[in-house]
Amino acid sequence: MKKLSVHSVVSNRNYSVLFVKDIKKEIEKIARERPTHCLMDRQIFKIYKNILDRKDFKSLKLIKVDEDQKTLEKINEYISFLLKNNIHKDHAILVIGGGLVQDIGSFTSHIILRGIDWIFIPTTLLAISDSCIGSKSGINIDKYKNQVGSFHPPTKIIMSTAFLDSLPKTGVIDGIGEILKHALIKGGKRYQFISENISKFGVDKRVDERIIYESLLIKKEVVEKDELEKNIRRLLNYGHTFGHALEGYTDHKISHGIGVLTGMDLANYISLREKIMSRSNFNKIHNLIYSFIKSRMVKIIDFDKYMIFLSRDKKVVGDRVNVLLAKGPGEVKIMKFKLDIKLKNYIKEYFDKYA
Amino acid sequence: MKKLSVHSVVSNRNYSVLFVKDIKKEIEKIARERPTHCLMDRQIFKIYKNILDRKDFKSLKLIKVDEDQKTLEKINEYISFLLKNNIHKDHAILVIGGGLVQDIGSFTSHIILRGIDWIFIPTTLLAISDSCIGSKSGINIDKYKNQVGSFHPPTKIIMSTAFLDSLPKTGVIDGIGEILKHALIKGGKRYQFISENISKFGVDKRVDERIIYESLLIKKEVVEKDELEKNIRRLLNYGHTFGHALEGYTDHKISHGIGVLTGMDLANYISLREKIMSRSNFNKIHNLIYSFIKSRMVKIIDFDKYMIFLSRDKKVVGDRVNVLLAKGPGEVKIMKFKLDIKLKNYIKEYFDKYA
Repeated sequence: MKKLSVHSVVSNRNYSVLFVKDIKKEIEKIARERPTHCLMDRQIFKIYKNILDRKDFKSLKLIKVDEDQKTLEKINEYISFLLKNNIHKDHAILVIGGGLVQDIGSFTSHIILRGIDWIFIPTTLLAISDSCIGSKSGINIDKYKNQVGSFHPPTKIIMSTAFLDSLPKTGVIDGIGEILKHALIKGGKRYQFISENISKFGVDKRVDERIIYESLLIKKEVVEKDELEKNIRRLLNYGHTFGHALEGYTDHKISHGIGVLTGMDLANYISLREKIMSRSNFNKIHNLIYSFIKSRMVKIIDFDKYMIFLSRDKKVVGDRVNVLLAKGPGEVKIMKFKLDIKLKNYIKEYFDKYA
Repeated sequence: MKKLSVHSVVSNRNYSVLFVKDIKKEIEKIARERPTHCLMDRQIFKIYKNILDRKDFKSLKLIKVDEDQKTLEKINEYISFLLKNNIHKDHAILVIGGGLVQDIGSFTSHIILRGIDWIFIPTTLLAISDSCIGSKSGINIDKYKNQVGSFHPPTKIIMSTAFLDSLPKTGVIDGIGEILKHALIKGGKRYQFISENISKFGVDKRVDERIIYESLLIKKEVVEKDELEKNIRRLLNYGHTFGHALEGYTDHKISHGIGVLTGMDLANYISLREKIMSRSNFNKIHNLIYSFIKSRMVKIIDFDKYMIFLSRDKKVVGDRVNVLLAKGPGEVKIMKFKLDIKLKNYIKEYFDKYA
């Protein structure tokens, strides 16, 4: 059984990630250890009812996966529910779901009774291979996304790839985007292994588990050095600035994974044109990324509109945007880039060539 | 100029408490250092408008002092206001007010943008002599008081006794309750100084400042040892269990200070009857406390009703309540006490004698 331990500076403790074979047995164990309240993805509950419909939870709240559920108003409702169910400081909250349910569970656990323990069972590839580590939660306020939140890692993360069977394809691509991002940031042997095996994801459970494990090791290394995102953790935004602008441009019709993958490929194209990345590096990485997005490439018609979305990014300071550009795998750096005609032309070139 | 530094384990840093002469100059300095958003007690703003109505705050939100303002719904509103005013991670929030405004300011600063710096200027004696140190905030959910919150100390606390001039007498008694509590928990020289001078509070600014300073030193010592209230910080609940029940019994018509002072005196009476406290210790402390509450003693008519309020306390486990009983100054201990006829009779005796 694979296992890893992550140190949280914010919480001044370690938390472990356990890969388990029998998820039912693990949940039984959790519920036996101490009174446990459960917040769970409604859809996951439906699909895995035989495992998850338990009488030994102190309380169970099902959560609809929708951005509207991630508001302070809704958090108020969840907390009220837990208090009515007599939650105490020595109880635990078990959170089962993907990134959105994680956000809600982590934040709720952080502020209820000034913070109680929570345990996380991630059920989407993105949560499994990336977001489960790193302590962050994000809650929406009005039109502002993730502008409220906390750093509150779980005490334990229980991993079971069993849940991946229930995912639609769009769910898998979200995870693959972040796994490839980790590989490209880290480079070396981990990049080698992931880039050689990622196209076969979903075929062999043992390979899948190894890919996930490698991805988490990279994430662990980054967040242990910089949990509060003051420096090196910012590298995890690789591909995200261009990706978010693309998600905005398409009115969020494309998935986050497609956004991030296209964003990294575009960033690399700019690196190539700026002579930061060699042609051979670009080709190698482009072939890898492009195999996942080729059939789903977004066609940009209005480049000025895309530039407006880009200029709204949190990383814009004055007329410049902080973007992450790479020389090659393992060599990603933050660089300031002017939001001007040159940048627009690079972007136009990229989409003319590949979309 | 008096100064003290408090270590926060939760935040992994120190924060300072500065006693200043010229509060106007200090606020000028704060607003100059970096973009500053201000959350302020509406009443304080009215009274000290000449000092506090500043053009150099990035934004200013006035807060009505009312328990209804301390809800997640209202926090949503304050955060929305700050985001509309383009608050950034490197800005600061300046919080000016008493304990309620502190709760709102501390919690808002903790969760907005996953935590930003805040500076606190306390304006009530309770906030000045007690609550400003210790990192805690509490927010209400439905009928549940302070069941949501965080540990997020300010980066700096600016002390000016100038604000005490604006307080109604009930405001002063709230502070005196906690100052005496600190003195009784600590004992020794600090108890000596506070007990000898507290009755003259408000007469000589230099003495007032020294009393506040001594009170804060005691609080500092306790919270530095146990910020998260796992053990020794629980001593700060001395008098509070009996006091809260009294506040509840009177439908919150008495102030918190009267509740706490009566609660400590009652706890000491029980200690006397249980032969934990000597008669001479009881008389000495009773005379001190009683001088503040004598004219405002609550008469209890329905003792069963009082016992019901007592049994609802958070510190009740099964048929027992954890109360803090003292042998003498500096010798307070947590003890389990059965919620039975014996306890009720002690309480009845106390109120028959003194109310």
